[in-house]
Formats: sequence, C-alpha cells, structure tokens
Amino acid sequence: MASSSTVPAGSIGGVETRFLDLPAPLRLDCGRELRSVRVAYETYGTLSPTRDNVILVCHALSGDAHAAGHSASTPDTGTRDGFAAERRDGAGGRTLGWWDGMIGPGKAFDTDRFFVVSTNLLGGCRGTTGPSSADPGTGRPYGSDFPVVTVADMVRCERAFLDELGIERLAAVAGGSLGGMQALQWAVLYPDQVDTIVVIASTHALHPQGIAWNAIAREAIMRDPAWQGGDYYGTGSAPDAGMGVARMVGHITYLSAPALTDRFGRRLQSAGDLRYTLDEPEFEIESYLDHQAASFVRRFDANTYLRLSRALTYFDLAREHGGGSLTRALAGVRARTLLIAFSSDWLYPPSASEEIETALRDLGKPVDYHVIDAPYGHDCFLLEEGRQTPLVRTFLDESRA
Amino acid sequence: MASSSTVPAGSIGGVETRFLDLPAPLRLDCGRELRSVRVAYETYGTLSPTRDNVILVCHALSGDAHAAGHSASTPDTGTRDGFAAERRDGAGGRTLGWWDGMIGPGKAFDTDRFFVVSTNLLGGCRGTTGPSSADPGTGRPYGSDFPVVTVADMVRCERAFLDELGIERLAAVAGGSLGGMQALQWAVLYPDQVDTIVVIASTHALHPQGIAWNAIAREAIMRDPAWQGGDYYGTGSAPDAGMGVARMVGHITYLSAPALTDRFGRRLQSAGDLRYTLDEPEFEIESYLDHQAASFVRRFDANTYLRLSRALTYFDLAREHGGGSLTRALAGVRARTLLIAFSSDWLYPPSASEEIETALRDLGKPVDYHVIDAPYGHDCFLLEEGRQTPLVRTFLDESRA
Repeated sequence: MASSSTVPAGSIGGVETRFLDLPAPLRLDCGRELRSVRVAYETYGTLSPTRDNVILVCHALSGDAHAAGHSASTPDTGTRDGFAAERRDGAGGRTLGWWDGMIGPGKAFDTDRFFVVSTNLLGGCRGTTGPSSADPGTGRPYGSDFPVVTVADMVRCERAFLDELGIERLAAVAGGSLGGMQALQWAVLYPDQVDTIVVIASTHALHPQGIAWNAIAREAIMRDPAWQGGDYYGTGSAPDAGMGVARMVGHITYLSAPALTDRFGRRLQSAGDLRYTLDEPEFEIESYLDHQAASFVRRFDANTYLRLSRALTYFDLAREHGGGSLTRALAGVRARTLLIAFSSDWLYPPSASEEIETALRDLGKPVDYHVIDAPYGHDCFLLEEGRQTPLVRTFLDESRA
Repeated sequence: MASSSTVPAGSIGGVETRFLDLPAPLRLDCGRELRSVRVAYETYGTLSPTRDNVILVCHALSGDAHAAGHSASTPDTGTRDGFAAERRDGAGGRTLGWWDGMIGPGKAFDTDRFFVVSTNLLGGCRGTTGPSSADPGTGRPYGSDFPVVTVADMVRCERAFLDELGIERLAAVAGGSLGGMQALQWAVLYPDQVDTIVVIASTHALHPQGIAWNAIAREAIMRDPAWQGGDYYGTGSAPDAGMGVARMVGHITYLSAPALTDRFGRRLQSAGDLRYTLDEPEFEIESYLDHQAASFVRRFDANTYLRLSRALTYFDLAREHGGGSLTRALAGVRARTLLIAFSSDWLYPPSASEEIETALRDLGKPVDYHVIDAPYGHDCFLLEEGRQTPLVRTFLDESRA
C-alpha cells in the first residue's frame, strides 16, 4: 500500500493484481472443459471473521481485475470506456481502477465495511485464462481453439475462484453492462449464496440493435486478414486495424448523441477550413475516434474481444432458464435486487431494467429500481459515481439491517 | 417503354439509363478541375413546351440515376437502403427504381404533369464520372487521384448537365438524405432557378454522431489492405471486406431499434440452440447483416462510398454560406420549401428539419414542415410513400397555383 501521505481521501491506495490457479477443470456451456484456469484478481478491504462481507465486482467488456486504487504494474492501461477512458491517474503513471469512484473507504462499495473482490473474466486478456493464454495441452496460445464462453461460464469460473479463497456467500454481486449480466446470472445460478445483486446499465437480454452493433464489431476484427482465423499470436501481426474499427463502433454506442454534440460539435481539426482529404481527420470527433482506437488496440486482445462480445449477445435469462419467460427464469432468485439505469443509455436502455423489475415484482421479490437522468449514455455507469453512490449505499445498508 | 398490358397502374414502365458528356470542365470546391465529365441520367414524363415542369430528383449515398420504372439493363442492382432494399422487382429480373413509389403517373412526383429528371451523382459509380472512371489525362481509372467532392460540386454538375438539356428553371428539386442536402444546396446556389425544394429526412449539417458513423464506415474501408490506398482497380482485389462492414454500420443507422426488434427479435438462425461459434451467424439479424453486406459490395464501388460519405459530412450550409449562421445562409433562398422528417429517424432526426424551418420562418420565407410518425427510422423516406405522397402533391399543387 502507498503511504498514507500520498493516498487521497477515500482511495484504496496502491494495489497489485494477483493470480490464482483453479485446481479443477472448468466445464463450459459449449460442452468443452478448460484445464489449468488461472484467475487474475484484486481485493480491497478486509474479510470479516465470519466471511459475510464479501462483494464481488464484475467488469464489463473492456475491463479487468484492476477495479480500484492505483496500480503501478500496468501503467499503460486505461480500462474505462468512452469519456471515462480519459479519467486517468496522473500520479507517476499509475493507473486508476476502472471503478475507483465507486470502491474505497466511504464510497458506494465501502471498503471500511466490505471485502471487495474483483476478477478478470474468463476468456480475458488481463491475467485470467483466455485465448492468448498457453493451452496446457500444447504449450502454445489457444488462439482459434479457445472456446466460445458464456456469461454463465464466467460466473462458474468466479464461483470456483471464490471457493479457493474460502468464500461461500456473497453479500453482493455488482457490475455494470456485461458486469450486471454476471450479477443477474449469479442470482439465478446460485440463489442460496447471493444476498444482493447490484445491476447497473444492464439487461437480461440485449436488444437486436445491440446484437447488431456487436456483430459489426466482431466482423471488423474477423475480416481483418491479420486476424488469421484467430491464430495471430507469434506471427508478428495482429488485427489492430479491425480492432480499431470495432472499438470505434463500441465507443459511439457507449455515448449519447447529445453528449457528442456537446463535446465535439462539428468543430474542424484544422484551424482554417476543409482540407478535402479522405485519410486525415477533418472533424475533432474523427480525431478522437482515431485516438480511442489506437489506445485500445495497445491494451486489448482481439480474440478476447470476440468472445466477450459473443457472450454478451448470447446472454438471455428467459431463453436459458425460463423456457422463454423472464418471470420463470427469475422464479428461484432469492437475492434482493438493485437496478440502476440511465436515461440517455440507448445501448442498455432503461426499458430492459424495467422488464427485470416487473418480473421480480410479479414474483413478489424485493427489488429497487432507479433511473438516473444523465446525459452521457451507457458510459454513465463509469461516470456518474456521485449519483449512484447514495443509491448503492442505502440499498446495501437496508440489506444488512 | 413496355407495352401497356405489362405496365402496372401508376408505373413508368421500362426505362433505360442514358449518358451525357459535359462540354466544359467542372471546377470543384477543392480547387481542382474535372475534365470530360459524363453524367448518367433517366427522365420520366414529358417536358412541357415552355420547359416549366421539370423536377430534379437527387439520390442518396447508395442510389443511382434509376429512380423509377423498370430497368432491364441493370438486373443486379438494388439501390434502396435497409428494409427498402428488399423491395425488388420480381418481374423477369428487372430492377425497380429506388423511388418508384414516389415517381410515376398519379404519384407524388406525377409524371402526367411533370418531367422528372434523375442523375447519378458526381463521384458516383453508376455511370457518372467517379473514382472508377478513366482519367482522360492517363486513360486509367482515377482511383486515389479522384478528388474529394462536395455537395455543392454535385449540384454544380447537375446544373451543367441541365444546361445541356436546355433546362434553365426547375419546378422542384427533391430528395431524401444526401438528396435533400442537394435540394437545399440548389436553393442556396441558384435561388433564381428553383421554384420549390422538397427536402426529406435530411439536414443542413449532419450532427456529430452522424459524422462519427460515417467516419467509422470510411475507416472500415480504408483499413482494408485490399483498398490499396484507393488504387485497387485492375489489381484483382477490392476492399469488399471493409465495404461490407461499412454497409453494416450504415444499415443499422438507417433503421430504428424498435424496427429491428419487431423484425428480428432475438431469434436464432439454427432451429435448435446456440452453436458456440464466432464465424457463423447465430442470430437472424446477424445473417441479415451478412446478406446486406454481400449484396452491397457487388454493386457499389468503395472509392465512391468514401467520397459521398465525406461529402455528406462536410455539408454545412451555415459554415459555407452564413459565416456560422443558418439564417444568414438561407437569406437568399427564393424557393418555397417542403420539409418532411420521420419521428423514428435518429440519423437525420426531425430536430434538423425544425432548425431549417425556424430559420426560413424567421426570414419570412414560405416553408411547410411535416413530421411523419413512422417506425422504420431513416429508411422511411424510401418506405413511407403512401404518407409522403399527399404532402408532396399538395405542396406542388399550391406552388403551381
């Protein structure tokens, strides 16, 4: 930990990502097994003697285990999306966790009370076993042979990981976007082991336009010849061009149109006038997209992107657990549920959270639902810490009362 | 013309695209000149003796001169976007014009009264001089040397073309999307030669999110190694992969999210269950996107796409003609204006048309503005003929009264 004199109020301080190898193979929805799975994780706060204060925080598509505090070991990462990507830590090149505004002493997930655990997802590229990891059967990176994993697979991996830490119950599972899907999946798969779930800017099943955006992003990667069918490791090239396009698509869907107008307008790059070129950015927003794409490909693996994108489009609680009925899928849930959506989020719109709320209410289960009126789009879950914090704190207080 | 027995009521019948070479070079906004410009065009109806019944119809990004009737010569084209792309002519492989529902005897642009002229845009790939045309200086296709053209350049080309037909005044200039931009540009550049403009699902300046979608589509093309900097003609390869992604992006922006939900839902391709693959479509909407991409690359040139996309993001009446003020830009307009927007169009939203209406009203100029409540998004301008028709007919009647 950093010395107290350099730790800002409410900060976790310095942290290191750690690693744990699962002792048993992981059985996947696709029917395959993964052996020798390693999980990258961080923890914040102190585990209570009765182990009843654990919060599992789940990251979204481009996140990692580094959710809070300052990491000295990965200075080049910025695991926040959209406008949030700009909120870097300027202190000595150390990187701020992607949800640092929500996790820490006195924060929404209060490390003075809770032991917060964050893992990199199965299939990831930031320390947990994924397509770029060595296949123990061959010693070479999995590449194209890495299976298509599901949100349920990720959650089973988290379950197996927590078993190793000796943690059986979770006071809460929390996350935004794909992270919120994991929280929902936990409540359905392990109803007796989850006290509460905090599901932010998420859904029980992505709508068709969202499926389309994800499909387009994956196409951009897979149509890049440098992808080489997924076996690009060690070849000296990688599908950076396609990944850049994928990131641009994602980026615009994470933000609202009014936010882009407020931020960039139609301002030109050159002080003067149009340059009548195709290959130089003319508008500020074009230059911004270029920059976002370039910085993303430096820190993220294309094969991981493909699988996490696939997983979040597959996710469909009603289909998987309810024979088409969301109510039936949620019938066994015992966790209290907090749902937060953002008015300007058109990728994970409030309507999806409302459907979950309605299903839980119809079942007579405890659920709180809040829509935060905020302009930034889906990215709000990383930006609107100030307004999420009292909702989360009150919800967790009431759940512990 | 087809014999009357095979012509459906209200149809133009069979048509052929014709070609005209401009006698003088065309001076462009970028400062360059284009020599030996050829224009592809079609006409419908009969020119009046006083030449006062001419309507110029302007196409959008992926259109061409074939706006109405059946073309036997280009059986493989489908120049409509989105859902509209499916409305093909099943009769003997002949292709229906992209605005056939709006142009014909008794239709919105009534060929019993008007002489309707439609040209392929400057920079196009469907007969008018564009990047795939032979540069008269070298005899080889322009490729990367073809200039970046503007909407004003396109309109000047249309002006020069109409000069050759001996047409000075236009009873109307009409179009949707990029076509509507041309109509607005006509009213500003040639105020004394345009009686009315019909501007549908268009804008005086695309909003930043729209700039971003276009930039992403262009990036997808230019990052495809097969693009070869624009000089792919004759090399045996073309940036089909990148064009496909560009088309997918465009396609989703042309439709509304609810329309995609109604049409595709989350239905899977395989009757059974998930296949856990990356490279096969799992959802119906993914298969649909693949199909749209594949059919588009067969009929459209990537270098043309790049230039038309650039032109429609450049277009900005206030910047170009008003020192930043739309009202000043429109001060010289003498045409009566009809604006139509669609409630579900998020790419060219009603707010853009409202800004034009407000500016014209502030100037005391005659303007009609209608928002049609329809669910399909931007594509409505190609789909909602039934509800546009009375608005256009009434407007043109009143203008001729």
